[in-house]
Amino acid sequence: MSHSRGPLSQLRRGHEELVLGLLRKHGPLSRGELGKHCGLSRTTLYDILADLVAEDAVVTASPQDTPRGRGRPAETLTLNPDAGQAIGIDFARRGLHVAAVNLAHEIVGAASEPHAADLPWEERVDLAERLVGTLTGGGLRLGALRAIGVGVVGPVSGPDAEAVPGESGQEAAGGPGQDGLEAEDGGEPVPHRVQLLLRERFGVPVLLDNNTRLAALGESIWGAAAGGRDVLYLRLSHGVGGGLVVGGSLHRGAYGLSGEFGHITVDRDGARCDCGGTGCLETVASIRAVLDAYRAEGGRADDVPELVKAVKAGEARALGLLDGVGVAIGGVLAAVCNAIGPSVIVIGGELAETGEALFDPIERALSAHVMPVSLHRVSLRRATLGEVAGALGGIALVLHESPLLARYPAGQDLAPGLYQQEGSP
Amino acid sequence: MSHSRGPLSQLRRGHEELVLGLLRKHGPLSRGELGKHCGLSRTTLYDILADLVAEDAVVTASPQDTPRGRGRPAETLTLNPDAGQAIGIDFARRGLHVAAVNLAHEIVGAASEPHAADLPWEERVDLAERLVGTLTGGGLRLGALRAIGVGVVGPVSGPDAEAVPGESGQEAAGGPGQDGLEAEDGGEPVPHRVQLLLRERFGVPVLLDNNTRLAALGESIWGAAAGGRDVLYLRLSHGVGGGLVVGGSLHRGAYGLSGEFGHITVDRDGARCDCGGTGCLETVASIRAVLDAYRAEGGRADDVPELVKAVKAGEARALGLLDGVGVAIGGVLAAVCNAIGPSVIVIGGELAETGEALFDPIERALSAHVMPVSLHRVSLRRATLGEVAGALGGIALVLHESPLLARYPAGQDLAPGLYQQEGSP
Repeated sequence: MSHSRGPLSQLRRGHEELVLGLLRKHGPLSRGELGKHCGLSRTTLYDILADLVAEDAVVTASPQDTPRGRGRPAETLTLNPDAGQAIGIDFARRGLHVAAVNLAHEIVGAASEPHAADLPWEERVDLAERLVGTLTGGGLRLGALRAIGVGVVGPVSGPDAEAVPGESGQEAAGGPGQDGLEAEDGGEPVPHRVQLLLRERFGVPVLLDNNTRLAALGESIWGAAAGGRDVLYLRLSHGVGGGLVVGGSLHRGAYGLSGEFGHITVDRDGARCDCGGTGCLETVASIRAVLDAYRAEGGRADDVPELVKAVKAGEARALGLLDGVGVAIGGVLAAVCNAIGPSVIVIGGELAETGEALFDPIERALSAHVMPVSLHRVSLRRATLGEVAGALGGIALVLHESPLLARYPAGQDLAPGLYQQEGSP
Repeated sequence: MSHSRGPLSQLRRGHEELVLGLLRKHGPLSRGELGKHCGLSRTTLYDILADLVAEDAVVTASPQDTPRGRGRPAETLTLNPDAGQAIGIDFARRGLHVAAVNLAHEIVGAASEPHAADLPWEERVDLAERLVGTLTGGGLRLGALRAIGVGVVGPVSGPDAEAVPGESGQEAAGGPGQDGLEAEDGGEPVPHRVQLLLRERFGVPVLLDNNTRLAALGESIWGAAAGGRDVLYLRLSHGVGGGLVVGGSLHRGAYGLSGEFGHITVDRDGARCDCGGTGCLETVASIRAVLDAYRAEGGRADDVPELVKAVKAGEARALGLLDGVGVAIGGVLAAVCNAIGPSVIVIGGELAETGEALFDPIERALSAHVMPVSLHRVSLRRATLGEVAGALGGIALVLHESPLLARYPAGQDLAPGLYQQEGSP
């Protein structure tokens, strides 16, 4: 599948998108009907259709039995429901999530696999290819693949993937050695390398963004905050972060550094944080922090599911711990609410699985610290898309059809040079 | 001056704006040149010009001496530099600020006057009219006045002035009885009454918004953050509040409740706040809070200028106090920075006059609590527009030409009914 289809010129890609869009909108159309709608010359249209059919993006449908005036009925063309158009990949700290949509923008599959936090990037990309393979094994073809939307941990300034440079950028991504995102031996920043690796592997543009911001996007389009114009998304996972939809637009921040709720100070005398700060929310509310604290109090849990079990059994130790964690989280949420005034707060990530044990104290602290006038104007919800939220957000980035992205920089591949080099047919 | 000019129909107003815009852009034009540019019929154009001249918005300029081919040179028309087009009024808690621009959008005057916090609204509006009179006394004519942009304390959902309803809304505006904004005897909310009073007095549409948000707008267009696309503005005055420019747009929040930095908790065991919360930043960093704390420690200062004097004299008590206040402010700013990633922080309000004594600890705490990766990406600045920032923001709201307002609801008068009732000439 790699390199099976060199990128076309932007113009030609635009014509293809026009034809695909018409088929998406109208359903099956004859060549003549397509010609009327698209305004392309007959030669150009037939050329494009031939290619689309050759690569299985479009299939010819048998003419219907309705009799026509004379001659045989015209053959119609329709989108191949098995053709993939966009893939989203979330390179999370300790796991990989992929999802794909077909040309009709239906989600045709999603898959996840955990891995060690120190898995080298080459192997992560291998794993990504394997997981995407499980989707194509399910019938998805990649011939029509337009681009891949990729989420990575840490600050990324935008879909054009200018990773934030500077000595502390990598630390902010989760600490040296912890998530494998630091540049090795002074080489190029990891986001760029990932992008190049994926680009080589799949032969299509790769759009990059922060994976938690993409999860916020996914939840705001298809998930718990669908339709929300002012959304605060918080993810409680190996890291603690989030994303914002502000006034109907996904927010990036001046330097791609927004949504870092996990690094808001909750305890000035607290533990040292990987970001270089002290007493950040992440030092209290990340998976590691919660499990460490639980074990320090004599609890036994190696992972979140085991903690959830203890919670469901009503174990006082687990409930007490989560109460304190929830109060810290609620305090941070209240501060951010007072600053930006969202109408919806969505909480996701593995720790959200602890349910009311965590959400009740969050709501209590939120109520205590948000301006009373805002209290009944913000609704607290649990994320609904699960662990593939980030991969789905990556797909949204590629499709770039959500109004939430209207003001977000349009997806640009990192290396337009490469894009040209591979030439057009 | 009141009712001297009934509102015209929107169409006619649009034609007038077209003509005024052409004169603003090209400078003096003859009737013939105007006709070519504007595309209006000769009758319509001459009608409109006659009215504009009659109301002193446009003046005829003597023909220049350059000889023409034949006949006498054509008379040219030009904007009257003394004609006011927009007025901004900031109804602050204890003072009133007005500013005006002429048709060329030059600021032609500004004036301020302090008053008691409990001054009734009718008298505030009288005062506003008097202050505006001092500007017109300076030569400004109100004939061409298009609208008034008004800032008020407390939550306002937007320039269409839907004041936030609900039992606690007025408290959030600064506490019952403190700023006179609460509805009296269950009457209509104060922002609406102010709007109606001003509308009666000046006979033009009155656009309303939160005054601190307008100050943020003013500073982001003409002040310390001019050109900034991601700006955090904090005002340290009788209340503590702020405003945000997010991704190049003035931010309003889902319910007009954004920028309430003064109600972010800084001390869970702190003093009761007028908003109903406990230990809000405002209980530590408002003018009253700072002066009270200073006096409690034996200091003598009745107002901010006296405190500034003590600071300039290097008094340890004043410096120590402001150090603590600055640390609290810096912590809140760091939290908001981590959440939204601005590139500029602007601090205004009377307390900013204390200078380094306050800014140094703010910067220290900001550095200690903002994510290290963001540290060198945000610049802390002192506001430059002074006390008329809010009035200038009101003018910006009326002109609605700043890109920062491109996505902000266009100015709508509260009462379109009234607008119709008064009829057109």
